Amino acid sequence: MRPPFIIDSMKQPLYFDYAAATPLDPEVLAAMQPYFTDRFYNPSATYLPAVGVKKDIEAARSQVAQVIGSRPSEIIFTSGATEANNLVIHGVLKQYPEANVLVSSIEHDSVLLPARQYAHKEIPVTEQGVIDLEKVAGLVDDQTVLVSVMYANNEVGTIQPIHQLSLLLQDIRRQRRHNGNTLPLYLHTDAAQTPSYLDLHVARLGADFMTLNGGKIYGPKQTGIVFAGSQTRFAPQILGGGHERGLRAGTENVPGIIGFSKALQAAQDRRHDETKRLQTLQKLCIDELQKVFPDVIINGSLKNRLPNNVHITLPGSDNERILMALDDAGVLCAAGSACSASNEEPSHVLRAMGISDADAQSSLRFTMGRSTDEAAVQQAVQALAAIR
Amino acid sequence: MRPPFIIDSMKQPLYFDYAAATPLDPEVLAAMQPYFTDRFYNPSATYLPAVGVKKDIEAARSQVAQVIGSRPSEIIFTSGATEANNLVIHGVLKQYPEANVLVSSIEHDSVLLPARQYAHKEIPVTEQGVIDLEKVAGLVDDQTVLVSVMYANNEVGTIQPIHQLSLLLQDIRRQRRHNGNTLPLYLHTDAAQTPSYLDLHVARLGADFMTLNGGKIYGPKQTGIVFAGSQTRFAPQILGGGHERGLRAGTENVPGIIGFSKALQAAQDRRHDETKRLQTLQKLCIDELQKVFPDVIINGSLKNRLPNNVHITLPGSDNERILMALDDAGVLCAAGSACSASNEEPSHVLRAMGISDADAQSSLRFTMGRSTDEAAVQQAVQALAAIR
Repeated sequence: MRPPFIIDSMKQPLYFDYAAATPLDPEVLAAMQPYFTDRFYNPSATYLPAVGVKKDIEAARSQVAQVIGSRPSEIIFTSGATEANNLVIHGVLKQYPEANVLVSSIEHDSVLLPARQYAHKEIPVTEQGVIDLEKVAGLVDDQTVLVSVMYANNEVGTIQPIHQLSLLLQDIRRQRRHNGNTLPLYLHTDAAQTPSYLDLHVARLGADFMTLNGGKIYGPKQTGIVFAGSQTRFAPQILGGGHERGLRAGTENVPGIIGFSKALQAAQDRRHDETKRLQTLQKLCIDELQKVFPDVIINGSLKNRLPNNVHITLPGSDNERILMALDDAGVLCAAGSACSASNEEPSHVLRAMGISDADAQSSLRFTMGRSTDEAAVQQAVQALAAIR
Repeated sequence: MRPPFIIDSMKQPLYFDYAAATPLDPEVLAAMQPYFTDRFYNPSATYLPAVGVKKDIEAARSQVAQVIGSRPSEIIFTSGATEANNLVIHGVLKQYPEANVLVSSIEHDSVLLPARQYAHKEIPVTEQGVIDLEKVAGLVDDQTVLVSVMYANNEVGTIQPIHQLSLLLQDIRRQRRHNGNTLPLYLHTDAAQTPSYLDLHVARLGADFMTLNGGKIYGPKQTGIVFAGSQTRFAPQILGGGHERGLRAGTENVPGIIGFSKALQAAQDRRHDETKRLQTLQKLCIDELQKVFPDVIINGSLKNRLPNNVHITLPGSDNERILMALDDAGVLCAAGSACSASNEEPSHVLRAMGISDADAQSSLRFTMGRSTDEAAVQQAVQALAAIR
């Protein structure tokens, strides 16, 4: 007989880091498989089997367009959200050397770092982690060409008021036209964390640019898109064979494109049911945590929040130690975004929300997904209770 | 009973476009599979299963480094050769606003187009499609920081004298140091077409930068690397979470990286045998073509040439019509590079070799690979004979 600790260690770990990575949906993988082998052709080739592959890419583009309510020609396939965000920021700003860009202070580094290469200003957020809409009008000046605000934050899960922001920018555009200012004022939203839960319709959002990512929606890693409205003008960043209408060169990642489109469709098809299901688990998780830890702080707005995110501070605790102990107990979660996990700096998101560095270092992020159930939530809270 | 033409159309087509795309090696796909599902973790996460995935990426990096004789820290995983070429050209040139870049006139567009955004000069090629080494010294000036010459051409298959070029540049560097010129003079080679046939050892080549691509070596599409020697300095082009030591951001394409490293290893393991095998087929193909078409012109050097490439002109013929007829007959080949297949312009490579536009429009590229055998070559020539 095996000793009990070995049986324990062989259990599937309880995964609470869906904001960092999702497993590939088996149906998505099945849709991709033929394009690795039988249908491996270069979509730019002229013979019929390659033309067939090209058609499949264009069908995937149409499917993505339909999901977000755009035209197919407004979809640019990229190698993921980071490239997409860079393309928007560099692509727009390089065209207007005198211009500036406005970003929220809680953007992902793939927006913040490119923006910092140009004249830029940051939109502050409230203590709840939501942008302060009233500040935006004062920050946009006559030289602002781009405003980039993520649809939902990857650390604390707060949903940003993109539609209201777009109405505000619409007013400013009207005033500008009245004043003879012909500079564009584009709205970009990084929606990488949202397709499993939120409405992605670009006209309803009022976005000129939108970033999506396959690796966070049970699709393949290093896949994604930029939606770029037909009214936008920007410089391509990767030049070559004229793929993606000259806006992003490189032989198309055919299995990746097929997989991304299928994953996006599946995420949006399930989003109402999955939101309801996870909201219940989110409430359970918060309730249980508050029972076990009377001093627990839930960070970020509870109202404007992704249903899969629970971000907490356990005052006085050391999150590095807790993460390691949770890992030993088979509970996989995060202190912040995975991207900056190896970085010693406290989270810029928590700082922007006015959370002290000490509290930031006592914070944990639990993000749920398709495999999460009530039992998993209960076990994770129990494991945490045993550790602290 | 089925009529014979239906049986014919159900046969596997004869694929002669390996320079455009290769099917994924089943062993490569098998190595990738676990990383789609069970091992889907974000490699930047801190829990042990993710650390395991990170280790696998680093093992893949070490494997790639060993194949090309570099240090692991000199390997940057990218989304393919196009991004890699852009990264080298932009990354170096952006650092030196007064500097210029020297490229061969037969580079891929993913080198040519970025280079044209800066001060640049082109190295001419001989009628044989090989760079004119004697011209290089006269073209390099005190402001040249980068020379980019592909290892083997994607259209006509000519192998370029990278090692001799590196010796020449070494002399110029010495002179420069003597004169107190501290600008670097880097050598970049786009080796996308070569791993199945040629030596990739970067020190033997004398390259400071080298581009490789998964999609041309039976690996996954949109995978590849830049080798960047530790002595090089360049600006990253995609910013974000600090992946790839800050030189290329974006959550790592784990299955892609695993697949690329395995495909590269397999290509190099087989290269001697495969070169010998394809040289025989190449000779057979040329002999048969010359038998059937006394006026056939073989373009590009026969001596300095990839063993899988046969590029011909059939004077007075229309290659568009021939390609369509070959496609109907089940023979898949190309007029030039797939990237520019949809482009009406005659090939810049053939132009650079002094081939007239009329002859360029009568040219065909056959590129062979692992599935090509004697029967396939014979059938392809017979099909062509029946068409012209």
